[in-house]
Amino acid sequence: MKILSACPWLPAAFPDEVAAVVPAAELVQAAPADPGFAEAWSSAEVFLGWPAGLDHAAAERMRWVQTQSAGAGKLAHAVPEAWTVTTAAGVYGGPIAEHTLAMMLHFSRRIDGAVEAMREARWGLGGPAIHELAGRRLLLLGLGDLGRCLATRAAALGMEVVGVRRHADRPPPAGVHRVEPVGRLDRCLAEADVLVATLPGTAHTRGLLNAQRIGRLRPHAGLVNVGRGSLLDHEALADALDAGRLGWAAIDVAPEEPLPPGHRLWSTPRLLITPHVGGRGEGNGRRLADLFLHNLKRYAAGDVAGMRNVFDHRWGY
Amino acid sequence: MKILSACPWLPAAFPDEVAAVVPAAELVQAAPADPGFAEAWSSAEVFLGWPAGLDHAAAERMRWVQTQSAGAGKLAHAVPEAWTVTTAAGVYGGPIAEHTLAMMLHFSRRIDGAVEAMREARWGLGGPAIHELAGRRLLLLGLGDLGRCLATRAAALGMEVVGVRRHADRPPPAGVHRVEPVGRLDRCLAEADVLVATLPGTAHTRGLLNAQRIGRLRPHAGLVNVGRGSLLDHEALADALDAGRLGWAAIDVAPEEPLPPGHRLWSTPRLLITPHVGGRGEGNGRRLADLFLHNLKRYAAGDVAGMRNVFDHRWGY
Repeated sequence: MKILSACPWLPAAFPDEVAAVVPAAELVQAAPADPGFAEAWSSAEVFLGWPAGLDHAAAERMRWVQTQSAGAGKLAHAVPEAWTVTTAAGVYGGPIAEHTLAMMLHFSRRIDGAVEAMREARWGLGGPAIHELAGRRLLLLGLGDLGRCLATRAAALGMEVVGVRRHADRPPPAGVHRVEPVGRLDRCLAEADVLVATLPGTAHTRGLLNAQRIGRLRPHAGLVNVGRGSLLDHEALADALDAGRLGWAAIDVAPEEPLPPGHRLWSTPRLLITPHVGGRGEGNGRRLADLFLHNLKRYAAGDVAGMRNVFDHRWGY
Repeated sequence: MKILSACPWLPAAFPDEVAAVVPAAELVQAAPADPGFAEAWSSAEVFLGWPAGLDHAAAERMRWVQTQSAGAGKLAHAVPEAWTVTTAAGVYGGPIAEHTLAMMLHFSRRIDGAVEAMREARWGLGGPAIHELAGRRLLLLGLGDLGRCLATRAAALGMEVVGVRRHADRPPPAGVHRVEPVGRLDRCLAEADVLVATLPGTAHTRGLLNAQRIGRLRPHAGLVNVGRGSLLDHEALADALDAGRLGWAAIDVAPEEPLPPGHRLWSTPRLLITPHVGGRGEGNGRRLADLFLHNLKRYAAGDVAGMRNVFDHRWGY
């Protein structure tokens, strides 16, 4: 079994760990730009990396692709349906949950104002009052790995966590106090203190947070997008912040990445922008390796049903 | 029983709630600058507010003082020992825990770098890598209410929480994985990723975090002071940050407050300063009222031992 890995940040022990699971495996580690990549790509049965944009017809022996991204929206119709694709859901949830909390606390504790006051050597805070996250209502759009990781942490801070998802009848995950169906989204928006979108970027979620839905949020509420830029109407977001109709917003994803220097969002007030780094964390290599090794074991046993995060070509995640 | 309250941010229902506990109580609400204060002060048996700096000899009937501050270090030798003094420990722990998390995440998620990049309309982060709080070791100096509130929240984020306190033989509070005696402080400092000081400002804690102890922290480590400014040698802190011997620091308390415009700390790199607002939160009035009403019930029953947060004049907290 030839395995091609294009992921450069796996633990040093990864080759030994693969050999321990499948002693006969031949592991090639190469990035798409490396000289040996094309040959390995055409003969590999398993690929660990990001397969979009590669020459799928040339991958004649490919049967399983483990992506290194949690979101796989762009893979729908972009990868042969005959391939088993598993996503990296579960790898980035912890870091993104921490990133989201950092964004929420940046505004709730008025760190934004403190940073500005420091620049002027001024002891004091202008603007809105500091408030507690405890007791506030967090609305989660999406209860996948990211949503669940955030739910447990937010609940530990004393927040009331409400989740919206398609399958509202399933029992709420840990930390989620209540699950509402997508049909009640508009009402939930009007009752939220903080809205966090963790949804994948698919045809089903594109433009979900449009001007009308942003308008349902209350003037003190905050909006966080750590899902995909395509979820959100950024012009409507900037309008709401400019007009004071929304308390604050924080985005780790943008309408274009990198966001160009002249873009309106750079000068929108009460908006925190981070450059698509929400998933960064030093534990990612270990978690991705563990996920791959689990799936490799199941794959080698012919047990595709036992693999984690199998991509559903219909839903796009 | 005459009760004088000088705290302006109690809930509107407070007078009714006092009357429900002690129907015969006479409640006067007045700030020290108000015309009726002096008369009420001289005749009150119970005071809710901050008693330092007031004319204690004039308070001839005073028997119990409920302070509105969690720290009461300045009350040692500043209030007649015959008075029962109860502090507001428990009121501000939640807000300060959130504030401390905001400070830690500001640096761990590199929100500091994102804010700087935004100012230049630049997509990207300079400086140190983002890292996870999960798996990192948090060293808590002080396991009072503030320390315990932070411990449970940090543990929910997956941090390893180590506490240092005088009474290391007592069982660790929830969220604290290990308690070490003060004698092992130096070794604990060398093993910490983040040090958080929540200690009261007393003769016992003054200057505890001196140049030598700051020097034991590792170059990637962070230091948070949400206790009292007197704990920390701020010149040594600025030296360590200037020289790159310390990862970052965040202080909500300063050597002088307000910190004057020309002070060195305003231009110290990788230092976040917030203007003594860590305890702010919209739930404080409710929590202080609840604490006072609990203590009032016990006081009226002659059960001083059943009151919460009785101040110990020997230890200064």
